[in-house]
Parts: sequence; structure tokens; C-alpha cells
Amino acid sequence: MSSRTIKAYAPASISNLGPGFDVLGLAIEKPGDVAIATRQKEAGLTFKLRGTVNNVPDNAQDNVAAYVSSLLIEEVKPLFGIRLTLDKRMPIGSGLGSSAASSVAALVAVNALLGSPLRKEELLPFALEGEKKIAGSGHADNVAPSLLGGAVVVRSYDPLDVVKIPIRNAIYWVVVHPHLVIPTAEARKLVPQTVPISSAIRQWGNVGGLVAGLAAGSAAMVGKCVEDVIVEPVRATLIPGFYEVKRAALDAGATGCSISGSGPAMFAVAKSPSSARAIGAAMKAAFQRAAGISSDVYISRVNMKGAKVLKEQ
Amino acid sequence: MSSRTIKAYAPASISNLGPGFDVLGLAIEKPGDVAIATRQKEAGLTFKLRGTVNNVPDNAQDNVAAYVSSLLIEEVKPLFGIRLTLDKRMPIGSGLGSSAASSVAALVAVNALLGSPLRKEELLPFALEGEKKIAGSGHADNVAPSLLGGAVVVRSYDPLDVVKIPIRNAIYWVVVHPHLVIPTAEARKLVPQTVPISSAIRQWGNVGGLVAGLAAGSAAMVGKCVEDVIVEPVRATLIPGFYEVKRAALDAGATGCSISGSGPAMFAVAKSPSSARAIGAAMKAAFQRAAGISSDVYISRVNMKGAKVLKEQ
Repeated sequence: MSSRTIKAYAPASISNLGPGFDVLGLAIEKPGDVAIATRQKEAGLTFKLRGTVNNVPDNAQDNVAAYVSSLLIEEVKPLFGIRLTLDKRMPIGSGLGSSAASSVAALVAVNALLGSPLRKEELLPFALEGEKKIAGSGHADNVAPSLLGGAVVVRSYDPLDVVKIPIRNAIYWVVVHPHLVIPTAEARKLVPQTVPISSAIRQWGNVGGLVAGLAAGSAAMVGKCVEDVIVEPVRATLIPGFYEVKRAALDAGATGCSISGSGPAMFAVAKSPSSARAIGAAMKAAFQRAAGISSDVYISRVNMKGAKVLKEQ
Repeated sequence: MSSRTIKAYAPASISNLGPGFDVLGLAIEKPGDVAIATRQKEAGLTFKLRGTVNNVPDNAQDNVAAYVSSLLIEEVKPLFGIRLTLDKRMPIGSGLGSSAASSVAALVAVNALLGSPLRKEELLPFALEGEKKIAGSGHADNVAPSLLGGAVVVRSYDPLDVVKIPIRNAIYWVVVHPHLVIPTAEARKLVPQTVPISSAIRQWGNVGGLVAGLAAGSAAMVGKCVEDVIVEPVRATLIPGFYEVKRAALDAGATGCSISGSGPAMFAVAKSPSSARAIGAAMKAAFQRAAGISSDVYISRVNMKGAKVLKEQ
């Protein structure tokens, strides 16, 4: 007999990785969101939000996890209804791919409950629709790694084409999330509409070096290529204490440091777990000292599995 | 006793690889240039050009191989003089990194004759000075692969920073050189000075995907990422028959096709030797048919060794 309840987890992700604005992203182990899908007799979708989080819509019309689930249900047309509970564990507007994790967790739970009519990769366009709803435009550098795991390049949006980077998973990623909110749409407004060719060349040189460094598993190579001459300079203005925190990360041994997603979370590149812990502590202290903001620190290698079913019963 | 004559070979290279204008390059097996350095009693450098090639300066003041050799000699200050013979086997203005191969072959030969005071990597700045002399600005995406072998990303020019891509060498590169000349400086004038952010993002997405594809050894991934939305469209106008030749390559099974360097040579990406031969023949026929131009075809995997000493005595 098929399952009646599925619980799924989808991890946070670092998108806009260094110079890879809109194209490079990778999944981390924590934090993440959990979704629980249960059969119900009534047709359609019932939605419930659990967890105490800022400004997350709690109704099926506006919540992104409910929205993408309803798209999937429309596609599959199951013979039973679904009750979806989103256990929201990540703040939104964090730069950690919070909405992507919600969408992906919900899609994986609902798809599994329906007997897995779609392969994991086939859930990507649904998750992307969620990003479009949230941000006005769909960016796949959070949803793709959260769903598929690993590190990805989104090389084309039209048609959607996501390339997995064959990484050697030897680098430790430090993510520091200060307790403030930057709406993605606001951060996007700051991105320049045209760029000098010299900056563009430097940016794609760094993208190439960063991908080569991920393939080689070299924190030194990756760190120095985490240089963003186009987007970081304008978005840094939205993060109080940005340059102090970056300085603290580099002084503590990080090989590179930049903004995660559209911020305010920041990430740093570390060679070892002990170095990562020292870097995380230094960045947290710097946010407190420079801006009076408390923050959470997450350390992991790349999450290679991505979203997964936690439990079925 | 140390050697009195050293003969060295440096290979051609595909630079501006697809979307990687100014940053991505790789070495191929053939063609290449040969330089012979011999001790002489008289101090300083004597230069001789061998081979029948178009417009290659035959005097020590203007020839790039002689120029970079004299820079190296100034640095090392040997107790004897050097007679340098450049056996020029590649045409200039070809898009194959001809001047880079001449400089690199000369530097490797002279350095070996001097007892290898510099490591191979340390010859790179000298070769780059040669490119500056030739083209007005120094671009390392030919000299670095010709010297070091493999595929490289030039992630920064200031300071010079070249990253080796950890490739899986499974792709066959087809290079077709039509018998016409495009001066690099003229091709460079066509490059736009500013680009829309949307084009820049697409370009660095393709750079990321291309490097991931090289690391994975996937002709399919590399081929689709050989898309250049910024430079190819303007430079294609300098190559008669460009779109016919590209169409012929793709129809014959190439996964991607673009301009090598600043042209007129073109390269295509193939999955196997037999596919590469079919693609090469189709491209050569298309150049003849569409533009009445004869051409040479070279097929190889990436040359992983780069420049090498052929003989010492």
C-alpha cells in the first residue's frame, strides 16, 4: 500500500556564488525547511504553516510552497486530496534560498506522496515558478542545488539548462546569517543594467576559475575567485558591517568571502573544519561589533544529495 | 658539460574559447612552432628566421620570439651569447596563437640552454610581454596553454593569475584554419565597450558550464556552452562563410562550434576521433563552397604537456 504521509527536507543554498550572479549555486547541509504531505479525502490542497517566522504567508494562495504544490497537483491530477504542512525553519529575505527550500521540500513531499510520478529533475520547473511568484523573475541558482544537491551552473534560462559541476567536496563553507531582512526584489534593483566589458571579462574569468577550483576541491583557488566586481560592491551597501565582517573572515583564514544570495547572509571559504569554526566565530563577532547585529553560523561541506524524503508512513 | 644547442616546440592554442573571451584557452597538439637556441661566442642575441611565412618580421628588433628572448637574456645575464633560429611553421593572424607559440618555443629553448634558471611558470610574464608588443595589450589565454599545456583560466591580469582547469581529456577538438589573415588588433576593435547585464550573465553562465564540462570531459556539456553572445556575433563578420561553416560543423555532429582566438580559424567540439574527422571534412568543404577559401584541418585532444624540449646536444 502506498504511503499516507511523507516528510521531506530541503536544504538552504548559497546562490549568486561570488562572481556567479544568477548562475552559480550550491547546497549546504543546514539550515533547511521541512514539508509534510498527507492524504486527505477532500480533493485539492489544504495548507498549514508551522513554525514562527517573519512575514511568511500562512494561506494557500500566497505561500510559495502551497502554490508550487498546487501546480504539481494540477499536473498530476491525483484521485485524492493533499494536506500540506510547511515546517518553516528558515527566515525569509535571508540570502539562504529560504523560499526555494520551502518550495522544494513541498514538491518532494507531494511528489513522493503521489507515488513519484515525476523524477527529481522534473520538479525543477515547478520550483522555478515559485521563485517567479516571489521575486517577479525566476532564478534557478537556489532551487536547483536545493533540489538536486551539489553545485550547479544555470547556463541558460530559455530554455532552462542546469549543469552540475563535478566537484571534489573538500571545501568547508561558512555561512553567517545576521538577524536582519533584505527583500530580494530590493537588492535586485541595485544591479546595474549595463557593465563595462573589462568588468564583465574579469567576472567571467573569476567564474571560470571558481568552477575549476570547485572541480579541483581547492579552497585556495575557489577563495581567490570569490571576487565579484559587479554586484557585491552595490549590494554590500545594504548590509551593515559588510566590510568589517569580510575583513574579519579573511583575517581569520578564509580564502574568500562574499554575499550569499542577495544577502544579508555572507559566506566564507575555509580549508578545514577548525579553520571554518574560527572564521565563523570571527564573522559573528564582527557583525556584533560593527553593526550590533546578532547572527547564526552554519558550517558544512557541499550537500551532495539535496532534498530528501525523511520519513514515510 | 651543459648543452650547446636546444631545440624546443610550442603548440598552437585555442584562445577566447567560446564564451571565455580573454580568459579561456587550451593547447592543441598541432600545429606549432620550433625554436633552436645555440651558444655563440659573441655576447647578446643573433636571430634568424626560417620557414616561409607571411609578414613575420625577420629581424631581432621586430620579431616577437627574438624580443622575448632578449628580455630573458637581460634578466639572466649569461656569460655567453645566443644564436636563436625560429622555425616558423604557423601563419600569423590565424587565430591559433601563432605569436604566442613563437615566443614560448624561443623562451623554452633559451631557458634550457641557459641551464633552466627559471621554472616554466616563470617564463609566462616574458611571453606576455611579447603579446603586449604584438597586440598592444597582453592576453595570456594563448601563451599560458602553449607554455604550460592543458586548459587554463586567466582569472586576473593585475596581478597575472592563471588557473589550470582539472580537465578529463576526452574531447576531440577540430580546428580549421582557412587561408586568410585577420589582424588581432582589427578584430579587437569590434569588441563592444559595454554590454547589457543580461548578456554578461548569459556569458558567465556559459563560461561556468564550459569549465564544468571540461572537468567532466563531456563533449555534450562543453559543446552547448560554446556559445558566445558578445564577441562572436561581431567578429563573425570578418570571416567569410562563418555561418555556413558553423552550420556544417553542427550538421556533421559537432556539439559546438565557434571562432578560435580572433579568427579566422574556427574550432568545433567532437565526441570521438571519427566524428572529429567527419566534422573537419565538412567544415573544410563549407569554407570552400561558401567562400572559395582553402583551409587546413587539425584534430587532437588537449595537449597536456605544452611546450617541450625536443632535442639537446
